[in-house]
Amino acid sequence: MKIKISGIGYYLPDNIETSEELAPKIGKSIDWITSRTGVKERRISNIDVDLMGAKASKLALKDEIPDLILNASGVGKQVIPDTSVFIQKELGFKGIPSFTIHSTCLSFLVALNTAANFISQGSYKKILIVSADRGTRGRNFNEPESAALLGDAAAAVLVEMPSENDKSSMIDFTMNTYPKGSHLTEVRGGGTNLHPHDKETSFADNLFTMNGPMIYKMARKIVYNQIQLDLKNNNLTVNDIDLVVPHQASGLAVKAYSKYGGFNRDKIVDILEKTGNCVAASLPLALALAYEQDKFKRGDLIYFIGTGAGLSVASCLLRF
Amino acid sequence: MKIKISGIGYYLPDNIETSEELAPKIGKSIDWITSRTGVKERRISNIDVDLMGAKASKLALKDEIPDLILNASGVGKQVIPDTSVFIQKELGFKGIPSFTIHSTCLSFLVALNTAANFISQGSYKKILIVSADRGTRGRNFNEPESAALLGDAAAAVLVEMPSENDKSSMIDFTMNTYPKGSHLTEVRGGGTNLHPHDKETSFADNLFTMNGPMIYKMARKIVYNQIQLDLKNNNLTVNDIDLVVPHQASGLAVKAYSKYGGFNRDKIVDILEKTGNCVAASLPLALALAYEQDKFKRGDLIYFIGTGAGLSVASCLLRF
Repeated sequence: MKIKISGIGYYLPDNIETSEELAPKIGKSIDWITSRTGVKERRISNIDVDLMGAKASKLALKDEIPDLILNASGVGKQVIPDTSVFIQKELGFKGIPSFTIHSTCLSFLVALNTAANFISQGSYKKILIVSADRGTRGRNFNEPESAALLGDAAAAVLVEMPSENDKSSMIDFTMNTYPKGSHLTEVRGGGTNLHPHDKETSFADNLFTMNGPMIYKMARKIVYNQIQLDLKNNNLTVNDIDLVVPHQASGLAVKAYSKYGGFNRDKIVDILEKTGNCVAASLPLALALAYEQDKFKRGDLIYFIGTGAGLSVASCLLRF
Repeated sequence: MKIKISGIGYYLPDNIETSEELAPKIGKSIDWITSRTGVKERRISNIDVDLMGAKASKLALKDEIPDLILNASGVGKQVIPDTSVFIQKELGFKGIPSFTIHSTCLSFLVALNTAANFISQGSYKKILIVSADRGTRGRNFNEPESAALLGDAAAAVLVEMPSENDKSSMIDFTMNTYPKGSHLTEVRGGGTNLHPHDKETSFADNLFTMNGPMIYKMARKIVYNQIQLDLKNNNLTVNDIDLVVPHQASGLAVKAYSKYGGFNRDKIVDILEKTGNCVAASLPLALALAYEQDKFKRGDLIYFIGTGAGLSVASCLLRF
């Protein structure tokens, strides 16, 4: 499917929380945090996801006006309306169709694939995809590993139909969801299940919980097989991939793409140490920071891959 | 875009709450409820949205296995993972890509359009779309009008590519979002905005709130113009439409399609009196009940239209 990322923007809050500052809050040492999560510092946002998303969007849009706004974040501003509405409001637009695509940390990739379908089909021409997450709002300091992993960020891309001779395209997209892993990453409250109505709903039910080791164990083999399948189906070797943009799930997870995945370490975007796991914003943020640092150029072959709550695994081959 | 709804199912909880039973809870008379909302009875579910959605899905699927599951509901089971995962779990599947499309009451129409794009593009072959909402969990008895409007239901459709000579297709789809109306329908809590962390978050912030009269005022003209535009763009008159399937926003809103929209009353699916406003489930439920009652047949032209929190307006012309 022909699709071109024509604009990229990101927003990282100014406020940095180092692991030195976090350590006493979670009752762990700096060494413990570093060895378990790989995160040395994370950003803490004091503005909400819609404003964060709008800041990233403005940089991605420049003077363009999209004809569709997709919010592709992990957690919304509120239950109703969906966050795309508030992002459009902050951008000062009106009348632009807006909705949310949600698959937690994979929301951006799913939205990118959806946008590619829309554009190839001629349904929309310029689609703004925004991922904005403020995971630090839902940190549980009694669960030190996930509390140390989470960071806040937003990133956005503008996608459109490339010109006729332009090779920009989505070459492949795959997603698989394994409900066996549904309880490995959760925010249990906030919906119809554990409603504030219910006496048994605890405060912690509204916080982020993650079983990192179990996810890693379950995901490693699935992800490894997916990489082999993607390469084989597209007649590629790891050397044909110019840049690997993985979800920044954890230090261990990102490092596994070189250790087990066989990709050259220099080709893998690893921003975890400085930004943590920014939920759905991690994937487009990794792309945006790599773009800023000239780590890839027009025509390069980019391989996105990641896991999300579900447990879901998704990958995408994109000719930039 | 060629697309065929090949399976339809719905689930209505057995438990009926009449307006006679509800009246004392909200401090209003039965006449007040009937005149303000048009709802005489609504269903109250004691099972959660994933189970409700799975029940409707099984009827829509029969023995088919989808290659994509789209949850298209108004409110999720929980914040993370998205509800599609839990629906897949309840259906006993694994490995099927699953995600959520959220635009509150319009989620089903947006998902139907997304599915049409996926199928036309060849990305997926059999897509299950599930809308399950349990709005009664978030009723605010201090806001009698919305509390009397809401009801619980689930409905699902299976969509696929029609055979070559089959005329089934999505002829037109339009959506527009006007953030000016973002505060007219809300559940303010459950996200990053009014988090349980915050002292100022009240219990009512987790409940449904709706300014019915203001929505009606804002939506009436937009909806009217949309109908005229859809008819004109497709060279149709109201008589060419075999069935109008509107979102069941309120008695007033549904009646307006005949009163101002010019459609013959017999052609408009009006299930509000018996089921209330079932959020995202209303649109596919109206389709499913009309199907059960033989109100339309293969080849008929169906016109879906509705409003959702945002404020968004969407419409869709479908050759069944």
